Formats: sequence, structure tokens, C-alpha cells
Amino acid sequence: MRGGVDINKKIRFVTSNEGKFGEAREILEGRGFEIERFDVGYPEIQSFELEEVANYGVKYLWEKFGGDLFLEDSGLFIDSLNGFPGVFSAYAFKTIGDEGILRLLSGNPDREAYFKSVISFCDEDGNSNLFSGVVRGRISEEECGKYGFGFDPIFLYGEETFAEISIEDKNKISHRRRALNDFIDWLEGR
Amino acid sequence: MRGGVDINKKIRFVTSNEGKFGEAREILEGRGFEIERFDVGYPEIQSFELEEVANYGVKYLWEKFGGDLFLEDSGLFIDSLNGFPGVFSAYAFKTIGDEGILRLLSGNPDREAYFKSVISFCDEDGNSNLFSGVVRGRISEEECGKYGFGFDPIFLYGEETFAEISIEDKNKISHRRRALNDFIDWLEGR
Repeated sequence: MRGGVDINKKIRFVTSNEGKFGEAREILEGRGFEIERFDVGYPEIQSFELEEVANYGVKYLWEKFGGDLFLEDSGLFIDSLNGFPGVFSAYAFKTIGDEGILRLLSGNPDREAYFKSVISFCDEDGNSNLFSGVVRGRISEEECGKYGFGFDPIFLYGEETFAEISIEDKNKISHRRRALNDFIDWLEGR
Repeated sequence: MRGGVDINKKIRFVTSNEGKFGEAREILEGRGFEIERFDVGYPEIQSFELEEVANYGVKYLWEKFGGDLFLEDSGLFIDSLNGFPGVFSAYAFKTIGDEGILRLLSGNPDREAYFKSVISFCDEDGNSNLFSGVVRGRISEEECGKYGFGFDPIFLYGEETFAEISIEDKNKISHRRRALNDFIDWLEGR
């Protein structure tokens, strides 16, 4: 046992994304927790808030599969577009892509944006907890870089886009890393 | 009784939208069905298909509130944007609006688009049926008209936008009207 959590009991990360799972495993195992991938679907509701989407999803999963599981949802929020694409980032990426975002901001000097990640964990009793991480940046004028995925090539963190930073380096500062850190701090303190 | 349906039993339309309800009531009552508004929330899942969103919602409502109820969901699908904004039309309208759509299509001659409405009905036994209506048109070069709501001012039906046609006239040809007609045909034939 460690801080009230039985570390011999694996925590299940509900995701179909191998990359996300690998990142989370590295961080969790590095701090003494076992994790396994649990590839099942869950409904993602339409809401303006990642927190609401994540909370609904994890409650649904708890009812079907029990607790000690978590999921992660993230999005790109652009200030001058009223938070668009936000919770619908995956859909926006698949339809209008990086190019669509650049078009929407064409000639617009206000390019402030942030990536946000929300983790929702549910224990065996159905109690859920949310953890979030944010990284602020700006939308570039054009796509740059070859790493990462999604909107990484147009998200400037300092002078470089997320797609110009190696995945290893990005994982040290990313919104997802920040949410995972908060989650693990909480797991250790339970 | 009429065609297997007890017309003394009211059908419940789950919507928070007074305008949608008024339109549906006029059409349903004109064909001998009683309808009442049922203003409760339901989860709208993230999916590329209106049908999936509507079906998930009506099943959720049936489990909580029983059957003989329906809901309606609609969206604007733009061919050259891979169907964007589609099922997320309400969200896209609230964030990037008509102006955002015009920007995304700026300089693009391929402006084909359609509005689609899907109605999902669930009976007392939990059997659900879907009905849909589509109206094809084009995205205009600028906003025109004062009627309607949402993307109506940029949706050209022939030479006029939906916002240049009176609501009464639009309701005769709209995607929602077409879906409602199919729904009522089916109700009569049950």
C-alpha cells in the first residue's frame, strides 16, 4: 500500500490511443503505479466544457465496468474564436484541419490560445475526481514542424510550435503531462 | 384510434425550443395528432452522424421517462469542408458564427451544402425509429436576410437565403418539415 492506494491493483486508462497510453504509463510507472490500457468506447456528450464530457464518460464507464479507471480528454481553445474548436477539436481537425484554423484567424492579430487536458478518475465506489492541465501559447501564421499530431503544427509554445519540439520534450511540458502530474499527486495523497 | 395509433394519447416532443415546438405542433395537429412539449435535457453525444446523436438521446429519454416521445436534431453540412459544421452546428454557430463559415469558404467556388434534420421517435416498448429530411443549397458570399436563426442568413435556397424567406414559407420546404412529414406518414401507417 502507498498513501491509501494499493499499488498492486492496476489502474485502467480508457483510451484507444496508443501514444497517449504510452505517455501515461511512463509517468505513472515512474512514480510507482501500475497501469493497464482498457480499450472500450464511451459516449462523449456535446458540451462546452471538457470537464462535463469527461465526467459523463467516466460515470458511464463505472456503471458498466466498475471503478479504478480514468479517461483523458483534451482540446485547443482559441480566445478570439470564443474557445473554438475546444471540446470539438478532434472533429474540427478531421474536417477543417490546421488550414481551417489558420483561415479563421487570417489577418487577426489576436492569436492567444491554450491546450487543455482533463483527466477524470472514478474509484470503485463511483466517486469521480477531475484533474486538469493547461499550456498557453499562440496560433502560428503557418504550419511548422513534423512531430506530434492534431493542431501541434500551428500551436506556438514560445518560439516553436509543438510539432517542432520532439515528443519526448513536449511530454515534459504538455497540458496532458500537467493533468497527469496533478492526478498522480492526488493518487499518492489518498 | 387511427392507423393503430391512439390519437387521444399525446406524443411528447422533447425540446427546449419554442419555435421548433410551434412548427411541429402546427403540422402534427393539422393531421390529427396531439402533441405536447416536454422540456427535459438529454445527453447529445459526439458523433459524425445526426442519426447516432438522435438515437442515443431518445433511448436515454425512454429509459428515464418512457416512450411515445421524439426529439429532433439538425445541422448544416458543407461539402468542401468535409461536412463541417455538421452535428456541431449549434456549437460552431455560437463560437465562429456565420462570419467564420464565410471565412472558411473565402475564395472557394465549391459552396455546395445541405441542411439535414433527423427525428428520433421511441414507442412505449423502447423501439426507436428515425426519420430524416434534407434540403440542398449553397453557402452565400455574404449574410443576407432577417428571418430565421443560426446559419439561415448564409444558406442559399435558389436565389434567396433562408433568412430572406419568411418563416412561414421556409417551414413549407425546410429539412425539418420534410422529416416531420415522413414521421407523420409513418405514425399514420402504424
